[in-house]
Amino acid sequence: MYRRPDVSATVPDTSALNEFEHALGADRVITSEDDLREWRDPFQFDSWDEYTASAVVMPESVEEVQEVVRIAGRHGVPLWTHSQGRNNGYGGPAPRVSGSVIVSLRRMNRVLEINEECAYAVVEPGVRWFDLYEALQAGGHKLMLSIADLGWGSVIGNTLDHGITYLPYGQDQQMQCGMEVVLADGSVMRTGMGALPGGKAWNVYKRGLGPTVDQLFMQSNYGIVTKMGVWLMPEPECYHPVWVRASRDSDLEPLVNTLRRLMLDGTIRGVPQIINTVLFGSMMSSRDQWWTGAGPIPDDEITRMGRELDIGRWMLRCALYGDEAVVDHQFAKLRAAFGAIDGVDVWGSKHAPADIPSLENPHERVMGGVPNLDLNQMTGWYGGEEGGHIGFSPIAPLTGRDASELRDLMRGMLAEAGLDYMASLLPVSARSFAHITMVIYDTKNEQQVRSAFDVSKRLVEQAAKQGYGEYRAHLDFMDLAARQYSWNDHAYMRFCETIKDAVDPRGILSPGKQGIWPKSMRGN
Amino acid sequence: MYRRPDVSATVPDTSALNEFEHALGADRVITSEDDLREWRDPFQFDSWDEYTASAVVMPESVEEVQEVVRIAGRHGVPLWTHSQGRNNGYGGPAPRVSGSVIVSLRRMNRVLEINEECAYAVVEPGVRWFDLYEALQAGGHKLMLSIADLGWGSVIGNTLDHGITYLPYGQDQQMQCGMEVVLADGSVMRTGMGALPGGKAWNVYKRGLGPTVDQLFMQSNYGIVTKMGVWLMPEPECYHPVWVRASRDSDLEPLVNTLRRLMLDGTIRGVPQIINTVLFGSMMSSRDQWWTGAGPIPDDEITRMGRELDIGRWMLRCALYGDEAVVDHQFAKLRAAFGAIDGVDVWGSKHAPADIPSLENPHERVMGGVPNLDLNQMTGWYGGEEGGHIGFSPIAPLTGRDASELRDLMRGMLAEAGLDYMASLLPVSARSFAHITMVIYDTKNEQQVRSAFDVSKRLVEQAAKQGYGEYRAHLDFMDLAARQYSWNDHAYMRFCETIKDAVDPRGILSPGKQGIWPKSMRGN
Repeated sequence: MYRRPDVSATVPDTSALNEFEHALGADRVITSEDDLREWRDPFQFDSWDEYTASAVVMPESVEEVQEVVRIAGRHGVPLWTHSQGRNNGYGGPAPRVSGSVIVSLRRMNRVLEINEECAYAVVEPGVRWFDLYEALQAGGHKLMLSIADLGWGSVIGNTLDHGITYLPYGQDQQMQCGMEVVLADGSVMRTGMGALPGGKAWNVYKRGLGPTVDQLFMQSNYGIVTKMGVWLMPEPECYHPVWVRASRDSDLEPLVNTLRRLMLDGTIRGVPQIINTVLFGSMMSSRDQWWTGAGPIPDDEITRMGRELDIGRWMLRCALYGDEAVVDHQFAKLRAAFGAIDGVDVWGSKHAPADIPSLENPHERVMGGVPNLDLNQMTGWYGGEEGGHIGFSPIAPLTGRDASELRDLMRGMLAEAGLDYMASLLPVSARSFAHITMVIYDTKNEQQVRSAFDVSKRLVEQAAKQGYGEYRAHLDFMDLAARQYSWNDHAYMRFCETIKDAVDPRGILSPGKQGIWPKSMRGN
Repeated sequence: MYRRPDVSATVPDTSALNEFEHALGADRVITSEDDLREWRDPFQFDSWDEYTASAVVMPESVEEVQEVVRIAGRHGVPLWTHSQGRNNGYGGPAPRVSGSVIVSLRRMNRVLEINEECAYAVVEPGVRWFDLYEALQAGGHKLMLSIADLGWGSVIGNTLDHGITYLPYGQDQQMQCGMEVVLADGSVMRTGMGALPGGKAWNVYKRGLGPTVDQLFMQSNYGIVTKMGVWLMPEPECYHPVWVRASRDSDLEPLVNTLRRLMLDGTIRGVPQIINTVLFGSMMSSRDQWWTGAGPIPDDEITRMGRELDIGRWMLRCALYGDEAVVDHQFAKLRAAFGAIDGVDVWGSKHAPADIPSLENPHERVMGGVPNLDLNQMTGWYGGEEGGHIGFSPIAPLTGRDASELRDLMRGMLAEAGLDYMASLLPVSARSFAHITMVIYDTKNEQQVRSAFDVSKRLVEQAAKQGYGEYRAHLDFMDLAARQYSWNDHAYMRFCETIKDAVDPRGILSPGKQGIWPKSMRGN
């Protein structure tokens, strides 16, 4: 019953490109082959060109986005939208359908409003974590932004892909409030209380009257988001990053179970990570320091690596935010709870919010809302000129049982492919975690790249069989990942397709995004 | 551009009723005029019959719901679904289109799962707050449920109407996770991770792969929800209800501003209420103790009432949940913050969770998750045999300015209609509040009922002009309320209609719900 897409590369006709140039100016329509190379997945093997755009258009205003959509509609040109296109590990800026015209919103980069009283901002899609952070500093606002690990990403782009951030509003990805969206017919809609002309609660109340449609525009292809409200957290009296180090592989289970209890009772309000030795070590060292033999690093060498780098077998990072007296209580509670696991160390120290930018450890800056790029180093793990990675990220209940089941599954299948197991278990909130598996490889080694993509696809299917679905899927296996969600003859996908056909009957908006194809490309 | 619905009462043909009887048994298809009276708005004037069903069907399983939908589809019979139908103040169980067949889900009342480890339950639509609470007690679970003021409502029904509850998961109405839905074609869909066969994260992770559609089934008519996950909170060490009493009407502004700061910084994690003298007093006394003259109770008498009942001009209720040391710190902080307002008193006391059921004050039981019906008394305010109320509930930013602007608007317009201003300001989370205006009247006094409906409608329009839209609308003015959300030529409503026409082309599911009409009834 699941219909395979019947897609071939498309090339927009010259008259469409002329119209884009007429609407935006020639300098904002990129078509040269050389320039277009920059808009491909940076982590694919270089000579592969399955996902290459035919042009990139760069609107600077909502009106220009509307005009681009109208031109695409008239000419039947598939568009592929991103905000910054920093979707590394999931396909970067590249389009699903070769020949699509990329709509890059990088030039729509204004912070439109910062409201100190109600603690929110309104941004355009091109605004990066760096930009919004800088705007908050420049305005002297005592407000913190929940950010992702790498500061170059778009606030809107990350949100629309269900991206995870680490401060308290990162829990359940809850910081978005209110959207403006350009629809496939070129019209503009505001969601929630923004649908009320002059509505005062657009960016403070998450719903409206009637169904809430905001999440319909995340991980989908139903519209182009042009504005979004972002909730900010008032600076607490005290910021306290916390580190927990466990020395044995088998400590994962008690670590996860303890963490769940501390998140359920509200002691930990941010989003932690539990990072394994190899992933954590890859940010501090190079692989050949540890292993130059064939296949993945053996277990004994991992133990040695953990010991010599002082990172054990698992490192848990999290942070506390609040009044100093409360943070003291919470830290003591964390120390007692994790410390009850044999051989576990717990440490961390208190800081005033003003001191966060000068913290040496980039993890502690990230959890403190200060964006940076320091954690990007790991992709050079296998040596070679340029490292790359695929993010394979199934979701599981936050229990020790599920954590070890997924660890065993990933580690075993990656080892068969000759790759190291590099993982971060990332609780989205108290009840579930994303098992972010970084499938890392040398992008110049074609055989290794192929092997990494192949094993990732096998992992998608095997994890699904065991009840774990991906929270976000790489361009190259979006269809495969979506196909796993097949309950009752793919009822969910059929519902998504029904909406797609209704709101974008010509199928011009990001066809194939997350496995959702318009009728014209479904091949039946 | 906004299209008025072209609706007239419909009556299903006999063959449709026969088919319902065949599918469910005659005892679960109610058609006698006497029995049907119970399924009308209990708060309308008795002889009005604009919103009367022609039949009520009571399925007991998902398969029966599917069968009901298929029969309705074949015969073009409009259905009107509710879970318990306790939508008092917003139309009760009555359908928008007279002659509709009510699908009452009261008999689908099983608690399907309680998961202690990950702290959630899965329920059917007929499960009331009472039922789920009792199931938790019966199973010996140390888990608390965020409940509404009246325990007779359905957990699912309240959630689907964006209903507000008071424990921490009440903030941003965030306790729902995972749904099963019967669609208009009679098929069944599971959302989020439930779309994965055997998916383990259905009720622990709020999204899936692709767009999240759960909120599409709230305040809408796109499907019939048959199962839902509900997050529960582990019992804290300490429960501490808090009362704040302000003696002057003008204290509202500092009260609201202080509350916002305490919610933004996470000190208050539940959902408070700020209740005015007349509403609070109506739960403790009868109106004729205070005023028997013409028109609304004069200001001086309200001050006297506040003094004599010890409730001042505003009563703020909230609660703290957590470790005793943290709760102590938070209560001291609350007392200092609110106590800085001249003449304000702050009190409350700590309890172990096991003691909550025996607390005398019903508010304290509600905020402690123990359902009751004690707060239902106010609707008898005007004496007479049977009191009724309309809920008029616009949303505003949680600022003192907005609070006093709405207070002045409501109070002034209600006074012109000869009615008392009875209000609860209810912060949905740290940034916005619903100004729940209880328009209370004697249902046996036709002129008073008419006056209450008329002024409510004028309030809808005037509040919208000032930027405040309703969060939920009474059956009798759903269209009017929806019409206020007209930004860019009703772009949001047109989007909702596009989805309606796609997912329910025959227009059989709850036509008119929240102002969303199927094509066949839009009259163009």
